Amino acid sequence: MAKITTSQEFTREEVGLALRNPGMPLEGLRYPITPIGMHYLLIHFDIPFLDPTTYELTIGGRVRDPLRLTLDELKARPMVTMPVMMECAGIGRAYLSPRPISAPWHNEAIGCAEWTGTPLRPILEEAGLLEDAVEILFTGHDRGIDQDVEQNYERSLPLDEALRDEVILAYGMNGGPLPLQHGSPLRLVVPEWYGMTSVKWLKSIRAISEPFEGVQQAVLYHYRQSEEDPGTPVTRKNPHALMVPPGIPNYLSRTRHVRVGPTLVEGRAWSGWGSVERVEFSSDGGRTWGEAELGEPVGHYAWVRWSYEWDVREPGEYELCVRATDAAGKTQAVDETEAWNVGGYGVNVVQRVPLSVS
Amino acid sequence: MAKITTSQEFTREEVGLALRNPGMPLEGLRYPITPIGMHYLLIHFDIPFLDPTTYELTIGGRVRDPLRLTLDELKARPMVTMPVMMECAGIGRAYLSPRPISAPWHNEAIGCAEWTGTPLRPILEEAGLLEDAVEILFTGHDRGIDQDVEQNYERSLPLDEALRDEVILAYGMNGGPLPLQHGSPLRLVVPEWYGMTSVKWLKSIRAISEPFEGVQQAVLYHYRQSEEDPGTPVTRKNPHALMVPPGIPNYLSRTRHVRVGPTLVEGRAWSGWGSVERVEFSSDGGRTWGEAELGEPVGHYAWVRWSYEWDVREPGEYELCVRATDAAGKTQAVDETEAWNVGGYGVNVVQRVPLSVS
Repeated sequence: MAKITTSQEFTREEVGLALRNPGMPLEGLRYPITPIGMHYLLIHFDIPFLDPTTYELTIGGRVRDPLRLTLDELKARPMVTMPVMMECAGIGRAYLSPRPISAPWHNEAIGCAEWTGTPLRPILEEAGLLEDAVEILFTGHDRGIDQDVEQNYERSLPLDEALRDEVILAYGMNGGPLPLQHGSPLRLVVPEWYGMTSVKWLKSIRAISEPFEGVQQAVLYHYRQSEEDPGTPVTRKNPHALMVPPGIPNYLSRTRHVRVGPTLVEGRAWSGWGSVERVEFSSDGGRTWGEAELGEPVGHYAWVRWSYEWDVREPGEYELCVRATDAAGKTQAVDETEAWNVGGYGVNVVQRVPLSVS
Repeated sequence: MAKITTSQEFTREEVGLALRNPGMPLEGLRYPITPIGMHYLLIHFDIPFLDPTTYELTIGGRVRDPLRLTLDELKARPMVTMPVMMECAGIGRAYLSPRPISAPWHNEAIGCAEWTGTPLRPILEEAGLLEDAVEILFTGHDRGIDQDVEQNYERSLPLDEALRDEVILAYGMNGGPLPLQHGSPLRLVVPEWYGMTSVKWLKSIRAISEPFEGVQQAVLYHYRQSEEDPGTPVTRKNPHALMVPPGIPNYLSRTRHVRVGPTLVEGRAWSGWGSVERVEFSSDGGRTWGEAELGEPVGHYAWVRWSYEWDVREPGEYELCVRATDAAGKTQAVDETEAWNVGGYGVNVVQRVPLSVS
């Protein structure tokens, strides 16, 4: 299924995916809401070329009254705006060895936007789910070939997840229109889950009576320990804290340089399993940890700011680390072997920032 | 000076730069003005964290009356809006062998935004250039280490180039504010030249009496055939045509799949040396060429649309190519050895799109 390599170097395919799919530069962690153009993107196929004036969403399958909704009709429905932290399930993949060949994310597959849209639940209620409906299938307009199968990008949600009040169909981002590359004219936003769930460029929503077995659902996005392992589906975001790398960078290596003295280290933390209860900071590569200070969350489904007053007195080489623990008691993997899985999903290994102090 | 490799694989540093510095997905060539968030970016160091309300630009050096201008003062000056096609000088570098280790661009280091700002020339005239001024030096707030030198990103322009009417200080992009990652609150925009000239996050503008010898001017951004070659400076954009890859992609390899029948192939072309006079299309890897149809340029400093009605009758494997020729008679390199140089700059080798027809 997955191509895997032990090479320390990267393939042309991986570089191609990196150039198409930007991460958020980590200095962007300074902003509670990620500015437009800085939020990560993972676009499986091509950005479709859709005309919002003729756009229609169809709601069908195992429903009593199939619906067709134009963008104006969707905008006339109740509107909600909420910040949602989004993270690609492939985050951290590039730290693994052997490494699955796909988008070679390190720590930058993140962003927290303010999404505007209309709740999904009332639309499904209006369509009237039939008794045999077990999942809701979301199909995008983006089409291509993955795992040798030609397909539109599509993923399903179990009924109880699709009916959560906070699941929305979004047509706005950060107070403006939804950008083309983020799914315009309409996308799904599912808080707490990894980003693959939030299908972009929505074409149809269908209630189905059997669990969806498409490539993006049944083949990809599973935690598997071997090719034979049936595995478990990737769902909610694992706890994760990241820092703005302090000081100034080297252009090529991105290693950091800081002067002796007090340095305020800051970042953001999140989890899809419960609120972040604790963030710890280490300046010695994870041997000793200190408590970081937590701010107020940007929103229930957003991230929370943390900071740590690091007073570095001795010139030399340091390795900064940070880790989060959530209300469910989950924390982060300290080394990447703990987090390894065939597809390289949900890798929340602690961030390590090598740093020269002078 | 430059690290060079003959490896077909890419280093972690290259992947890191690719993830920080997004390209424009080539399907974005459909839009005359590149939407916000799809325009390429090359950020040498970190995105600086600047407060526009206290921002000041200083104009000094060899001038009679040094100036300090706030953002409001800059916005009160004459305003111009114009589309400018921008391209990173590192475009095509990843096709070279041996390959310089830096941002591993293929074809996507492009974009055409509508920039809003105020012309530079009247500001320099107000400051009053002294007789010994030979260059204007533009210094950004972004700071880091490159070629072992700690520096703010800075580049100069010869006086006659800096005084061109169309050189502007931009505070807006695509009708909105200048995004942080594109140089907010203020950046330089120099039409026709490669992007490294258009310094972002401007801190100061200084008239200088000796040619600037900083790293980004005298060490990098030169066409050199060997490490010892003094080379020539990289300046204007070489002619370049690119196409929207037709059909649908494979997720990982990005190879394309098209059905038998007529396919409208389209794209954009540009040159910094003169208007685009001719665009040619090939479906057999460059053995035979046909004339593409040219549209109206989006603007004098923008790109021009081209299209070609390709009627493919036989299933099989094809390689599509496109090349531009400008009014100065310059055209594109057909293979990458022609375009090779130590730093991997200005590589305008023809785009090759492998494609399966079924």
